[in-house]
Amino acid sequence: MIFERIKSEGLAHISYVIGSENEAVVIDPRRDCKVYADIARREGMKIKYILETHRNEDYVVGSRELEDITEADIYHGPGIDFKYGNTLQDDQEIFIGSLRITALHTPGHTDESMSYALADLNAGDETIMVFTGDALFIGDVGRTDLYGPDEAPRLASDLYDSIFNRILPLGDEVILHPAHGAGSMCGGAISEREYSTLGLERLQNPVLQKTAKDEFIRYKVEEKLEFPPYFKKMEQYNLEGPPLLHSLPVPELFSPGEFREEMEKATVVVDTRMPHSFGGAHIKDSYSIWLEGLPSFAGWVLPYDKQILLVMEDKEQLESAVRYLIRLGYDNIAGFLNGGIGAWYIDAMPVDSFNLISVHDLRDKLVKGENLFILDVRSKEEWENGHIQGAAHIYVGHVEENLDKIPEDCRIVVYCGTGRRSNIAASILRKHGYDRIYNVLGSMKAWKNAGYEVVE
Amino acid sequence: MIFERIKSEGLAHISYVIGSENEAVVIDPRRDCKVYADIARREGMKIKYILETHRNEDYVVGSRELEDITEADIYHGPGIDFKYGNTLQDDQEIFIGSLRITALHTPGHTDESMSYALADLNAGDETIMVFTGDALFIGDVGRTDLYGPDEAPRLASDLYDSIFNRILPLGDEVILHPAHGAGSMCGGAISEREYSTLGLERLQNPVLQKTAKDEFIRYKVEEKLEFPPYFKKMEQYNLEGPPLLHSLPVPELFSPGEFREEMEKATVVVDTRMPHSFGGAHIKDSYSIWLEGLPSFAGWVLPYDKQILLVMEDKEQLESAVRYLIRLGYDNIAGFLNGGIGAWYIDAMPVDSFNLISVHDLRDKLVKGENLFILDVRSKEEWENGHIQGAAHIYVGHVEENLDKIPEDCRIVVYCGTGRRSNIAASILRKHGYDRIYNVLGSMKAWKNAGYEVVE
Amino acid sequence: MIFERIKSEGLAHISYVIGSENEAVVIDPRRDCKVYADIARREGMKIKYILETHRNEDYVVGSRELEDITEADIYHGPGIDFKYGNTLQDDQEIFIGSLRITALHTPGHTDESMSYALADLNAGDETIMVFTGDALFIGDVGRTDLYGPDEAPRLASDLYDSIFNRILPLGDEVILHPAHGAGSMCGGAISEREYSTLGLERLQNPVLQKTAKDEFIRYKVEEKLEFPPYFKKMEQYNLEGPPLLHSLPVPELFSPGEFREEMEKATVVVDTRMPHSFGGAHIKDSYSIWLEGLPSFAGWVLPYDKQILLVMEDKEQLESAVRYLIRLGYDNIAGFLNGGIGAWYIDAMPVDSFNLISVHDLRDKLVKGENLFILDVRSKEEWENGHIQGAAHIYVGHVEENLDKIPEDCRIVVYCGTGRRSNIAASILRKHGYDRIYNVLGSMKAWKNAGYEVVE
Amino acid sequence: MIFERIKSEGLAHISYVIGSENEAVVIDPRRDCKVYADIARREGMKIKYILETHRNEDYVVGSRELEDITEADIYHGPGIDFKYGNTLQDDQEIFIGSLRITALHTPGHTDESMSYALADLNAGDETIMVFTGDALFIGDVGRTDLYGPDEAPRLASDLYDSIFNRILPLGDEVILHPAHGAGSMCGGAISEREYSTLGLERLQNPVLQKTAKDEFIRYKVEEKLEFPPYFKKMEQYNLEGPPLLHSLPVPELFSPGEFREEMEKATVVVDTRMPHSFGGAHIKDSYSIWLEGLPSFAGWVLPYDKQILLVMEDKEQLESAVRYLIRLGYDNIAGFLNGGIGAWYIDAMPVDSFNLISVHDLRDKLVKGENLFILDVRSKEEWENGHIQGAAHIYVGHVEENLDKIPEDCRIVVYCGTGRRSNIAASILRKHGYDRIYNVLGSMKAWKNAGYEVVE
Repeated sequence: MIFERIKSEGLAHISYVIGSENEAVVIDPRRDCKVYADIARREGMKIKYILETHRNEDYVVGSRELEDITEADIYHGPGIDFKYGNTLQDDQEIFIGSLRITALHTPGHTDESMSYALADLNAGDETIMVFTGDALFIGDVGRTDLYGPDEAPRLASDLYDSIFNRILPLGDEVILHPAHGAGSMCGGAISEREYSTLGLERLQNPVLQKTAKDEFIRYKVEEKLEFPPYFKKMEQYNLEGPPLLHSLPVPELFSPGEFREEMEKATVVVDTRMPHSFGGAHIKDSYSIWLEGLPSFAGWVLPYDKQILLVMEDKEQLESAVRYLIRLGYDNIAGFLNGGIGAWYIDAMPVDSFNLISVHDLRDKLVKGENLFILDVRSKEEWENGHIQGAAHIYVGHVEENLDKIPEDCRIVVYCGTGRRSNIAASILRKHGYDRIYNVLGSMKAWKNAGYEVVE
Repeated sequence: MIFERIKSEGLAHISYVIGSENEAVVIDPRRDCKVYADIARREGMKIKYILETHRNEDYVVGSRELEDITEADIYHGPGIDFKYGNTLQDDQEIFIGSLRITALHTPGHTDESMSYALADLNAGDETIMVFTGDALFIGDVGRTDLYGPDEAPRLASDLYDSIFNRILPLGDEVILHPAHGAGSMCGGAISEREYSTLGLERLQNPVLQKTAKDEFIRYKVEEKLEFPPYFKKMEQYNLEGPPLLHSLPVPELFSPGEFREEMEKATVVVDTRMPHSFGGAHIKDSYSIWLEGLPSFAGWVLPYDKQILLVMEDKEQLESAVRYLIRLGYDNIAGFLNGGIGAWYIDAMPVDSFNLISVHDLRDKLVKGENLFILDVRSKEEWENGHIQGAAHIYVGHVEENLDKIPEDCRIVVYCGTGRRSNIAASILRKHGYDRIYNVLGSMKAWKNAGYEVVE
Repeated sequence: MIFERIKSEGLAHISYVIGSENEAVVIDPRRDCKVYADIARREGMKIKYILETHRNEDYVVGSRELEDITEADIYHGPGIDFKYGNTLQDDQEIFIGSLRITALHTPGHTDESMSYALADLNAGDETIMVFTGDALFIGDVGRTDLYGPDEAPRLASDLYDSIFNRILPLGDEVILHPAHGAGSMCGGAISEREYSTLGLERLQNPVLQKTAKDEFIRYKVEEKLEFPPYFKKMEQYNLEGPPLLHSLPVPELFSPGEFREEMEKATVVVDTRMPHSFGGAHIKDSYSIWLEGLPSFAGWVLPYDKQILLVMEDKEQLESAVRYLIRLGYDNIAGFLNGGIGAWYIDAMPVDSFNLISVHDLRDKLVKGENLFILDVRSKEEWENGHIQGAAHIYVGHVEENLDKIPEDCRIVVYCGTGRRSNIAASILRKHGYDRIYNVLGSMKAWKNAGYEVVE
Repeated sequence: MIFERIKSEGLAHISYVIGSENEAVVIDPRRDCKVYADIARREGMKIKYILETHRNEDYVVGSRELEDITEADIYHGPGIDFKYGNTLQDDQEIFIGSLRITALHTPGHTDESMSYALADLNAGDETIMVFTGDALFIGDVGRTDLYGPDEAPRLASDLYDSIFNRILPLGDEVILHPAHGAGSMCGGAISEREYSTLGLERLQNPVLQKTAKDEFIRYKVEEKLEFPPYFKKMEQYNLEGPPLLHSLPVPELFSPGEFREEMEKATVVVDTRMPHSFGGAHIKDSYSIWLEGLPSFAGWVLPYDKQILLVMEDKEQLESAVRYLIRLGYDNIAGFLNGGIGAWYIDAMPVDSFNLISVHDLRDKLVKGENLFILDVRSKEEWENGHIQGAAHIYVGHVEENLDKIPEDCRIVVYCGTGRRSNIAASILRKHGYDRIYNVLGSMKAWKNAGYEVVE
C-alpha cells in the first residue's frame, strides 16, 4: 500500500493518492494534476478512480484534467446534477488491490458531501483511515453557511448527524484525512497539526465537545465566516466541469514598454512582492498580493473578465504564481514584467509608493494625538479578540466596496495581523486615489510584541 | 508543529523529526544525518534533543554525528552503561515549543528500550502519537532473542508488560510510529503499511491477539529469526558511540588496472548489479549483492577488516551504496571500478560467469531427471511455507559456513524468492570454486506463477 | 551577448542559441525544443528567428515545433521547395540586438545548405563565429553522397568551393560552430574536440589538406559511408515540415501480461539494456539497442509502421529513450514494461538468452580449431583497419537483409568495437532463429588490449 | 578531450577544467572547489595538475583546497616566493592524455604571471587554446598598477612584450581563455562576450590597437582603476596559501532576539536585499550590499576582524552569499536572521528606512531649486562620461573615508548607474547618522531613459 498527501499551499487543500498492487485512487485532485500521474508512474501503478468528496467552492477541482491524462473514472456524491463523472451511492464499495473504499454519504457542508472509509483487507476488515472532505477537519468542522442563512440550520443538523452518527462511530482508532489544513477558508479554526484520529478529534476538537445536537447547531448557525466572491465561480465550474488546461499556461514576458501597453487593455496588475518591497516602489494602480497570499486573496480582488499582468520579486516565482491562479480559475494570465520592478524604474516608468511605518512610530503618533484614520482589515473574529484603540474595522476583502467609509482628507494607517493583508488594502486605497497611506510593519503581532495596549 | 518521517530503505529504519516553535527533536537518527539538520534549517528550527529508543543492533546510530553538527543533547534509556549521552528516567518529560514528550520505559526488545509519548499542549493533554522503537511495530512486535535463548523468556515477559500495560493503555486513538517498517530484521512480519494507531494494532496485529501472557511468551520464545554476524559490531558501536564520519566517504575511482592491483591487497569486491546482469559477466571472486540488498545482506558476508571495492551498474549508484555501507559501519570503502564491468572486459581483464535459468527450463530438467543439487537459500519460514521437491535448505547468510553440505561434483541450482538472494549464494559458491552453478530467474515467485508444484 | 550550445547525445547534433539585448535566434533546433524556450526565458529574451542550415537527413528538425511555442520566424536556404518557413538569399543579413548574422549559401552537403556568419557590431564589423551546418566539421567535412553516386562529383565540387572560397576566407580567427560532433553519421571522422576555429581547421583538418580541387573531389567521391534507411523519412519530414508533437509522448506502463498482449499486435520490442545484461535474459524476439545507441541504430532496425514497446534497465531511462526516438520520428511508442525484465521473469514469462564470451575464451576456441562463424559487424573502414583472422564482415545495419550469408548450422560469434553493436546483431540473429550465438565482450577493443593478432 | 569553463559570478572569475584520457588539469580553481572534483568524477578522470596563472589579488585561490581533496600537484610561475606548490619555468611542458600544455612566462599584470598554451597532439602540434590569466582579456588587457605608480611603466612594458611577442604570435586561430569576464576589477573594460580568438583580439581589442610600445605604456600608466582594500589580504593569502575550509561554512540561524544580541558583539550586519526592499525597512546600522554585488563590494566595506551577520530576502540565498564571501576570505560568517526582515519587524525590533526617489521626482526638485546635495558614487570613468549637473563625485568604495565632504545639514540624494551601488552608499551614510537620505531608483540609466540632461 502506498499513501501520499499532496498539500497545495495557501488554499491548504489536501489531496490524496492511495495505491495497492498496481492500482491507485486519487481523492480530490487539484487542477495542476501532473503530480498524481507522476506518483502513480513512479510506483508502477495505474490510477483507476478519482473520488470527489464534494463540489468544492474554494478551488477548481482537477478531476476532469486528471481523467484526461489517465484512464481513471470520476465519482462523486448523490443529490446534485454534476455534468461529468459518475454518482456514488451511500455504502457503495470500490476496490483497488487489497484495499476497500466505502463511500459514506455525509452531508452538512454541502448536500452531496461524501466521506470515504478505507480498509486494508490484508490486515483486516476494520476501517483504518477515513477521508472526510470538508465534513470533519483536525480541530474544526466544515462550514455550513454556503447555501445562505436560511439553509444553515438544516445543514448544521445534517453535519451533526454525519459526524456523530456516521464518521465517529467508525472508531477512535481510525486515522483522519480531511480535505483542508490550517489556513483554509472552508473552516474557521483548523489546526496546524497534520495528523489526527477520530478518537483524538472526539477528545480534542472544540466543536465536537458540543455533543448536544441543538448546541452544535446553534454554534454553527452563529458562526461568521467570510464568503469570497470567487466561490460562486468555483461552484459553477465544479458543477459543470471546469475547462481543461492540458498544461500550465506560460505567461509571456513583457519589457517595461510592452507591459505598459498591455496595461492600457482590459488588464489588472498584481504585484506579488512582500510589503516592505512593494511599499517603496511599485507600478501605479497595481494590486499588492504577496505570493503565498494569492490562493486566499486573489479571489477577493481579481475579476475573471480581465487579463492578469504579474510583477514579481524574482522570475523563479512565476510557476508558483501561475499554479496559485489557475487553481482559482484565473486562466487569463497575460504575462509578467521582465526584470521586475527594477527594470521598470530603470526605464524611467512612473512609480508609486506609500509609507511603511513601525509600530513604535505609530504609537508615537497616537501618543502625540496626530490626526489618523486607523483601519483594521483583519477578520471579524481577530478584531473582536483585540484591536488598537480608535481603529475602524473593514475586512480586507470588503475594503474596495466600502471606500465611502474611509475619509480622504487625513492620513490612513492600515494594519492587519503582520502587515501583508494590510498591504493589499493599502494598494486598493492607493489605486483609488488615497495619497497619505501608511502600512504598519508587523501590524498587530508587532504591536503586541512591543507590549502596546489593545482593546476589545 | 512539523512532523517528518525519514525512511532509510533496505534497513526499513524510520527516524523522525518533530518540531514546534523553532525547536525540534530527532528520534533515532541515522548516521548520514545531514537530512535532519537540513529539515530543521528549512523550517527555521534548532534541534534541541536527540532521543534514542534503544541501543540499536542493526545499524550505526547517528546520534553523535548529529550532535556534532548541532547543539542538541542526546538521551537514551536507563539500565545500560552508554559511553555517551544522557540517561532518561521513566516518565521523564521533555518540552519543545508547545509539545510535551514523555519517556516511557518499555523493555523487552532490549532492557533499556524506551517509547516516547507526544502530546500537543495546544490541543490538549492527551497523547497524540507514540514512538515505540522496536517494541511495537505495525503488524508485529520486536524480537526478544537478542540476549540469547536463556534470556528470551524474561524479555518476552517484559515486552508483554511494556505493550499491554504501558503502550496500549495510552488509548486506541494514539498514532503509532515505530522504528522499523516492512523488511527489517528487527521483527519477523512487519506490515508494508506505514500508518497505524494503537487501536488498529490492538484489533489487527496478529501478535497482539495473544492477549494471554503465557501464550505471548511461548510464541516469542519459539520464534526463529536470523542473527546476522554484524549485529555484534553494531551493539558495540552503539554502546560506546561509533566513530564520527563528519561527511560521507568519497571512494576513489580506479581504472581496471588499478582495481586489479587493489584486489591483490586486503580487499573484497562487491558487485551491486542485478542478477541478470551479474550472471553473464562479472569479476572473478566478487560477491554479488544487489544495490538495495546491501543494507540487509552486506552484514552477512562482508568482513570489517578488509577494504571494500565496488562494481556498479551505473556510477550514479555510488552515493546510495556508500550510504548503505556506512550505516552498517563499513567505513572502509576503498574505491569503485571506473566504467563498471564494461571497462573491465574492454581492458581484457578476466571475467567469470554462471548460468541463469528460467523456471521452465528448471522444470524440464527435473522432469527429465537430470542430476541436480537444488539449494533453497530463503529463510526457514519461507522454506516451511513451501519449496521445490527435492531441494536442500541453507539460509543465504549461512551458505559460506556450510559449504561441506554442498556437493562439488554435480550441477548446483540455487533459488530464493525472486533470484536476488540466490545470486548472492551463487556468487559465494563460485568464489569457492563451484563451477556448474545455475541461478533461477524469478525463483519461487516465478515457479509459483508458472503453476509448478511446491511441497511443504 | 549570450551563446549556448545544445548537444543532443547519440546523434551528436549541435544546435545553438544566440542572443543579444532581449532578442535571440536558434540555429537548427531539435524536435524536443522546450530547452530553447527555457533558455530564452531565463535570459529574458524572445526568440525571433529560427535558422536552418539545411534540410537535415539524420533527425527531425524542431523548427515548426519551436515556432509553435514562440513568435519566431523560420528561415532556410534557397533552391528547394520547403513546405514551411521562409527562404534566405545568399548574403542576406539578419539583426538581433547588436549582432548581425549573414547568410552564406554553401552548397555541397545538400544544394540548399547555408552557413551563418556572426558579427558583434559592438566590437567591430568582423565575423567572430560561423555556423557551418554540415559543410565543415571539426576534423572533417560534410558527406556529399546523399543524392547518390551520380551527383556526388558535383556536390563534392560545390563543397570545395563553399569551404575554400566562402568559409575559410572569413579568416583564421573565426570560431567554428558546426551542426555535428564526433559520432554523427553526417561525416566520417569528426573530431571529439568541441572547439575550433577556421584557422585550426585550415591547419589540422585532414580533408582540408587536400587543397587541390580535383584531389578533394576524388577523395569525397571515393568515401564510403553508411546510409541508414530512416534518412529517407527524415528528408521527407524536413521538407514538408514534420508533425507537431506539442509535448513529449508519455508511454503507458504495461504489466508483463499486458506487455505480452501488446506484443501480439503490430509492435516491435526494443530492449535498451547493456549487452552484459541483455545476453543473460531477455524477451524472446526483442531487439537489443543499448540506450545511448538508439539515436544511431534505431533508424537501421525499427520500422515506422509498428508501435514500439520498451524494456529498460531502469524506469528513469524512459525520458531519454523517448527523446532519442522522437528525434528520429518514432512517435509511436506504445509503452514500456513495468518493472523491467525482472518483473517479466518473476511472472514466469518466457525468456531467451545467448552467450557472452570473453576474448580469451574466443582465442582458446580459435586455437583449438573449433568450428565457428565469426561475424564482424563494424563499419567497412573499421574492418579494413584490422579484424580477426577468418572473420566475415557485414555491417550491423545490413545484417537483417543478409541472413542468407550467415550459416545456421554452426556457432556464430559476433563482434564489433566494444560488444554493443554486435549485441544488436546477435539479437537480430536470435530473432531469426539462430540458436548458438556468442557475443564477444569488449570485442575488438578487448581483443587488441589482450594483445591478440589482427589482420588487415 | 573535455573542456569546461566554470564562471564565478560577480568576480567574473573564470576557471577551467581540461581533460583527456582519464586525466585532468584545473586552471585557477576557486576556493569552493568541489565543482572541479565533481566534473572529474563525472568524466571518470583524475585531476593531476592545478595550474595558477598568477598570484591573484581579487579572490582567494582554491589550489590548496583542491589539492587537499585530490592527488593533484600545484604549479605556478617563477620569480615570487610562494609558500606552497611548485614553480614552472618558461616553456616547460605538461602532458595529460593526448594534450600538451606549454607554460609561457607572460609578466606584466604581475611579475610571475603565466599563460598556458594547449595543443591536442591527436590533431596536430599547433596551439589550439591559450589561457592568458590576467594578461589578455576579451576586449581589454590586465591592469598594471598593482605594484604602485612607480612600477607601472615597467609592468606595462612587460605586458606589451608578453602580449605582442609571446601570446599573439601563437596565431590568429588560437582560442582565447582569460581568467576574467566582464565585471572584473582586474581589467577596466572587459567585453561581455565570452568567446574570442587571438586574431579577433588583434583586430578588435581596443588596447591592442596601440601597437606602438610607448603608446601602449602611456595608455596603461594613465589608466585609473580602483584598488579595493581587500586586495592586500588576497595577495597575502595567495602567496602563503590560504587557510583550508574543507567545506562551506554553515552559518547559524538566529531569531530576531538572538540576532540583536549578536549585534552587540564585534559584528557587522550585511543586508543583501535589493534597494527597493532595503529602503523601506532595514535593521539600523546595517550595510546594504545586494546579493550579486557582494563579490565586488564586500571587499570595500567589510572588515576582516569582525563576524558577519546576514539579512536576506530569502533563506535560499544563503549558500550564494556564503560562497561569495568565502571567495574573498570572509570566513567568519556568524549567522543569518531567521525569517528575514519580516521576522524582525514582527518582533517589534527597531527598523530604519530612507527614501527611494524616482528620477522624475528628483528632476522636479531640481527644477524647483530645492536645496539638495547630489552625490554620484560611480567610478571616475562613468562620472567623466556624463553626470547630473551640480552633483559631487565620490566613488562608492571611498564614501566611508570621505564623510567630511558630505554636508549633514541638507538632503542628500545619492545615485549611481542603476541604484544599487548608491544604496550601499546610502546605507553607509545612514549608519553614520545622516538622516535625510534619498536613493535614486534607476539612477543614471533611468535619468537618461527619461531624457534628462547630463553634463560632462
